[in-house]
Amino acid sequence: MWAWVNGEFVRRDQPGIRLEDRGLTFADGLFEVLRTVGGKVLFWDEHLARIRRSARFLGIAFPFTDQKLAAEALELIRRNDVTDGELYLELTRGADPYRQHKYPPSGTEPTLFMLSFPLRTIDAVNWERGATLLTYPDLRHRLCEHKTINLLANVLAKNYAYERGGYEALMCREDARGSYITEGGSSNYFCCRGGRLLTPEIDNIMPGITRAGVIDHARRAGIEVVERRLYLNEFLGADEAFLTSTVSKVMPIRAVDYTTFPAPGPVTRRLMDAFEELIHQELAR
Amino acid sequence: MWAWVNGEFVRRDQPGIRLEDRGLTFADGLFEVLRTVGGKVLFWDEHLARIRRSARFLGIAFPFTDQKLAAEALELIRRNDVTDGELYLELTRGADPYRQHKYPPSGTEPTLFMLSFPLRTIDAVNWERGATLLTYPDLRHRLCEHKTINLLANVLAKNYAYERGGYEALMCREDARGSYITEGGSSNYFCCRGGRLLTPEIDNIMPGITRAGVIDHARRAGIEVVERRLYLNEFLGADEAFLTSTVSKVMPIRAVDYTTFPAPGPVTRRLMDAFEELIHQELAR
Repeated sequence: MWAWVNGEFVRRDQPGIRLEDRGLTFADGLFEVLRTVGGKVLFWDEHLARIRRSARFLGIAFPFTDQKLAAEALELIRRNDVTDGELYLELTRGADPYRQHKYPPSGTEPTLFMLSFPLRTIDAVNWERGATLLTYPDLRHRLCEHKTINLLANVLAKNYAYERGGYEALMCREDARGSYITEGGSSNYFCCRGGRLLTPEIDNIMPGITRAGVIDHARRAGIEVVERRLYLNEFLGADEAFLTSTVSKVMPIRAVDYTTFPAPGPVTRRLMDAFEELIHQELAR
Repeated sequence: MWAWVNGEFVRRDQPGIRLEDRGLTFADGLFEVLRTVGGKVLFWDEHLARIRRSARFLGIAFPFTDQKLAAEALELIRRNDVTDGELYLELTRGADPYRQHKYPPSGTEPTLFMLSFPLRTIDAVNWERGATLLTYPDLRHRLCEHKTINLLANVLAKNYAYERGGYEALMCREDARGSYITEGGSSNYFCCRGGRLLTPEIDNIMPGITRAGVIDHARRAGIEVVERRLYLNEFLGADEAFLTSTVSKVMPIRAVDYTTFPAPGPVTRRLMDAFEELIHQELAR
């Protein structure tokens, strides 16, 4: 398998990056995971806009044009013979020979690299009958509106769920009113109550590309969507619920801990179909 | 310069690690920074005990004995001709060819690497007349009792201070009573009020090796030390204050934002001297 680093194709099973890269020593970087279908990359513009916005926030230069990078991404996918798959993109503040918190001198080249993978195997039963979630405390930092590589708390949350047979963690924070839901280790959440969609507002959670696509479609289809702080007891009492992510797409939720939901519910089913249609449109662009 | 990775010495300016290492993609790892003096490493046992404890917490195997690793560390320092310097040690969950949150199969080799640096240059005026701090919100996750590489919030805090001429950030969280201090981007804090030392308890902050050494010495010298939640207004109203870290050792604080302190104050001066003596004892072991 090949990887791509700052304009060069390298063997993925060989060292490809310096030990003093700030991505490795400070998690000083950002990433995106994009879905590839039939050798095309889905929602490229949306993912690139998001990482560029966060790179500006962190003061990291983005060293390629979208167009040039898209060509390199397609070549990487072609070389790895990946048709249906995932494209991983990471941007770091670059190699820093001092390993000090202080930003390296201007002129330091950021590191941009891409990996491509065959699509991970997900049991179809998760879409057909719904996924199981386990609640877990949201241990993360306050930079979650940016897709940073500071993911250890996400790793712990998801593995907590995996070890108990679940598909994802449903992370929760606390306020004076009680426990409210934020997101999963790599998913956003929605529930449907009385025909309205409810989803956590972007308050230290990831503004997901699939999340945005679902909200946009729902509103155009006349479904009311409310983005606000969403308490765990409201979520557990919903008529139906689903999660969204680039890889999981729209996936019904069958259970959260010991609470079960009809899965897929009728609204979820509509949105699953609509999202497949959105992918078809994206592929035809 | 040489680096050391999983038993091999490699050139530091060359790629030394795979792009799919979980340290780089998930910040799924831990680190230590140790002070080297005259080709010896200070407080080796204490640092190794800390990283081993956190590795157990994360379920990452530690792949070398302390004794074998110490020999490799000394050889690395020797090869790089570093006498006074810093030894950086990082442990990650290893290369993971899938880039998925799920822990890789058992048998995956963790990555352990070391870098050695000449001692960073710190203006002596910081010890002679005290360092300046700037307050900054503590944006970090809830895993700060472990020395994880999820450091982006620390990077932002310290650079906020640097850009304003400061030496460190004084990070604060909020509770119902107000703003309380936690730690710096890479330091612990103490203040002295009425002859008593006050320092934040280990409540999602780093249990610093220098911090522990100072507390231990102070207690043996008959100084009362109180570890508890410490509010910013208490800290700002203290008689004197100082910070501790492996590299900064015991450093007086001259100012926090617009509040100034006598620096070094008499208790700080005693503890600075005592810590130098502790280093001498450590070197003589």
